Amino acid sequence: MSKYKLKCITCEKIYEPDEVEYTCPACGNRMGTLEVIYDYEDIKINREEFSKYESIWQFEKILPIEKDSYRTLLHVGGTPLYDVPKLSEELGLKQLIIKYDGTNPTASYKDRASAIAITKAYEKGYDTIYCASTGNAASSLAGLTAPTKLKTFIFLPASAPIAKISQLFIYGANVIPIDGSYDEAFDISMQIGEEKGWYCRNSAINPYLLEGKKTGALEIAVQNSWNIPDYVLVSVGDGTVISSFYKGFYDFYKLGLIDKIPKIIGVQAEGAAAIKRVYDKGEPFLPDDIETHTIADSISVGKPRDIIKACKYVKASGGYFISVSDKEILNAIYELSLKTGIFGEPAGAAAYAGLKKISGKLKGYKVAIVITGNGLKDVKAIENFVKLKKVKPEINAVREVIEEYEN
Amino acid sequence: MSKYKLKCITCEKIYEPDEVEYTCPACGNRMGTLEVIYDYEDIKINREEFSKYESIWQFEKILPIEKDSYRTLLHVGGTPLYDVPKLSEELGLKQLIIKYDGTNPTASYKDRASAIAITKAYEKGYDTIYCASTGNAASSLAGLTAPTKLKTFIFLPASAPIAKISQLFIYGANVIPIDGSYDEAFDISMQIGEEKGWYCRNSAINPYLLEGKKTGALEIAVQNSWNIPDYVLVSVGDGTVISSFYKGFYDFYKLGLIDKIPKIIGVQAEGAAAIKRVYDKGEPFLPDDIETHTIADSISVGKPRDIIKACKYVKASGGYFISVSDKEILNAIYELSLKTGIFGEPAGAAAYAGLKKISGKLKGYKVAIVITGNGLKDVKAIENFVKLKKVKPEINAVREVIEEYEN
Repeated sequence: MSKYKLKCITCEKIYEPDEVEYTCPACGNRMGTLEVIYDYEDIKINREEFSKYESIWQFEKILPIEKDSYRTLLHVGGTPLYDVPKLSEELGLKQLIIKYDGTNPTASYKDRASAIAITKAYEKGYDTIYCASTGNAASSLAGLTAPTKLKTFIFLPASAPIAKISQLFIYGANVIPIDGSYDEAFDISMQIGEEKGWYCRNSAINPYLLEGKKTGALEIAVQNSWNIPDYVLVSVGDGTVISSFYKGFYDFYKLGLIDKIPKIIGVQAEGAAAIKRVYDKGEPFLPDDIETHTIADSISVGKPRDIIKACKYVKASGGYFISVSDKEILNAIYELSLKTGIFGEPAGAAAYAGLKKISGKLKGYKVAIVITGNGLKDVKAIENFVKLKKVKPEINAVREVIEEYEN
Repeated sequence: MSKYKLKCITCEKIYEPDEVEYTCPACGNRMGTLEVIYDYEDIKINREEFSKYESIWQFEKILPIEKDSYRTLLHVGGTPLYDVPKLSEELGLKQLIIKYDGTNPTASYKDRASAIAITKAYEKGYDTIYCASTGNAASSLAGLTAPTKLKTFIFLPASAPIAKISQLFIYGANVIPIDGSYDEAFDISMQIGEEKGWYCRNSAINPYLLEGKKTGALEIAVQNSWNIPDYVLVSVGDGTVISSFYKGFYDFYKLGLIDKIPKIIGVQAEGAAAIKRVYDKGEPFLPDDIETHTIADSISVGKPRDIIKACKYVKASGGYFISVSDKEILNAIYELSLKTGIFGEPAGAAAYAGLKKISGKLKGYKVAIVITGNGLKDVKAIENFVKLKKVKPEINAVREVIEEYEN
């Protein structure tokens, strides 16, 4: 018997894992995304078995994977959690902790999801895996499949940052750069994937990705010595990462390892706030797509696939959604780097932009923010901060520049 | 009394730490670089106190720092060590392990050295720190000083990869982009630094950097369960990183924690093989500078500052130097990414190029290679591998591309 089951987020029908591959047949791809549910009373687990920097596989007991199946060669997860008392005080918080996933193998949060998807592809006996991606899921899947026997097909907007695209080619993936949006790449990938019978690592469609992503929440609990934040701020595109933060804390809560679930606050780019708009209209939550325009490519999603789960989970947590402008995001990248040395990509730093915006409301609380990707993945976004004025290799020319800096 | 002393690499005179700041006054900056020596019998240490992914500060007992002085906010070190049996077998080795430092906070090995330099700047009461750099030492110093009270001045060739330069500005450093080589930037920085009385984080001049860097060797010992490799291959620019690998294993050996020191093999770019040339001429080792030309910017050093130590230590280990072409380096980046998912920058992947070149000689041995920087730091270097042919967002156009990939 499997240690987990799959449950439709809309009709709540429960399936055995071998009954359904991706989404609830009755409710369809958009409304019928599946949750992975466990029999919590059956799982024997305690706080002492976890350590700070181990990879995601330390959470195997509450991951939907088999005991001896494939595990990534590369060290996924176990990324740092930074306690930043000075910045916390500046913002009037009780504690500010920053989960930084820019040090994952391919430098983004998405490695957590790709790792699980690859394990599932092995368990299910596929020889090819594919995804549509704004860039990070793509480079993550390409990097983590590189040393495996799996063939990998990637559909992404050709406008993705060059660093992310370069990763795909250097990892040897089969790349289909779509001259269009992420949403278009997604729909095309689904059609091709079905025709070909490849394994699908697409956000929300594949129910296991969220389980990989939830390890970020589990790590926050472990790394902050089980001192659970009151609020967690996460940037939001498709809605899977934010849902996974609720689910991670929920699992630990149901297992009796923690005594509360933080309020989850979703931060969207103003030009891509599809989920916020639906959430603010209230229940019943129904998809309502938009056109997007934002520099934060990783969350530039107009047709968010995990919208239902994101809205339901955020509501259950007592949280809400906010949005930030591109200007606020750029300033957040700069300020966060300057004050902490943590350099996030635009979508990564959006959570800090959100925190800056609502810190007045969070005074006195313990707050966690999640920086989902490394700034090195999109240096073009910050080119306005780079003022490269060459100096002649002569001592007097250099002395002049130094003087300017000092005055 | 200080727990360590400083010893000149040439005249072997021993100094107390407060007697001398940088190099041996009698032998000068080039010949008089200093070693940090400990009274090994005085240090109580055992294998059990170390864990796999803790930061470099776990090695505090054998680092030249005070007990309660400044420690970096960011998690330096504790980077992954990958055991790659498939690739090892392909190359005919007994074991191949890969130390990957692309997941350090600023994505290179240099964070290890900057961390110690910053601690020393605090201990010594400086308010400003500076360095000359090919790029990585710079971004590392800028990132790790960002959350401190220290002012930071960076001298680097304006031709450094844009990602490294972007890091400097986003971390708020004072940047002096020299329209010339690293070697010119170095000499100018030394003159300005002396005039200003700033703390110097320049390779070889500052004797503590090597001690920070040696933690990479210590981690290999800990992470490979004290199973010490026969050979370690490291790319070489100034000569400090390679020296630090000898020193790290030497310290553990003198402490009785390991029973041998690996043979250290230095890998230089053909167009910047200044140390190899001197080493091959034999003793006495004397600096002999060259003009450089290589795509591996981080090791593009014509006037290597740690040349004496590098030659003496490599000789003591029983190792040697080899060189690889730019083409071999580019192929190494690609092949390593493809076979492992580890994406190194050019200088980072040079060690793998070296291994490919001499693997015939290493058959049957346990070998470690060190990948010193993240490929995201220089995506321009691999642009020839990136074949971005946009595809219309139409199913038939996509089907055609897929077919091409499949045939």
